[in-house]
Amino acid sequence: MARVVVDVMPKAEILDPQGQAIVGALGRLGFDGVSQVRQGKRFELEVDDSVDDVALGRIAEELLTNTVIENFTVSRVAD
Amino acid sequence: MARVVVDVMPKAEILDPQGQAIVGALGRLGFDGVSQVRQGKRFELEVDDSVDDVALGRIAEELLTNTVIENFTVSRVAD
Repeated sequence: MARVVVDVMPKAEILDPQGQAIVGALGRLGFDGVSQVRQGKRFELEVDDSVDDVALGRIAEELLTNTVIENFTVSRVAD
Repeated sequence: MARVVVDVMPKAEILDPQGQAIVGALGRLGFDGVSQVRQGKRFELEVDDSVDDVALGRIAEELLTNTVIENFTVSRVAD
């Protein structure tokens, strides 16, 4: 078994209203010094050792990411 | 300026229906070998150097995380 993390973030040129709302809320709550926030998704997968990087890439690209507006990164993490 | 990543994941004892739906979809799509998926959130913040780790912890705990059902990790990343 291996643990895999897939991070999915909105592309830089895509507006991120959730992140902008957080920046606004931070200012109202008195937390200064945060100039930008972008919100994405993090998936933690438990996979068999038979699942190779090609399959992981397809899982990330075809199921977990909307590639029109999002980028993804796949990384295996130590247990 | 520094870049900070806050990862927010559902606690282990909390049911994660989104993750379970992904496991089911993977099976139907022919991707075998994935036994568990948990879905959380990833926030990428651009912060001034004046923002210390205490402030970052408060931001993560008070605004970005529902601590009843979620855990968070804060990490500074190299630019």
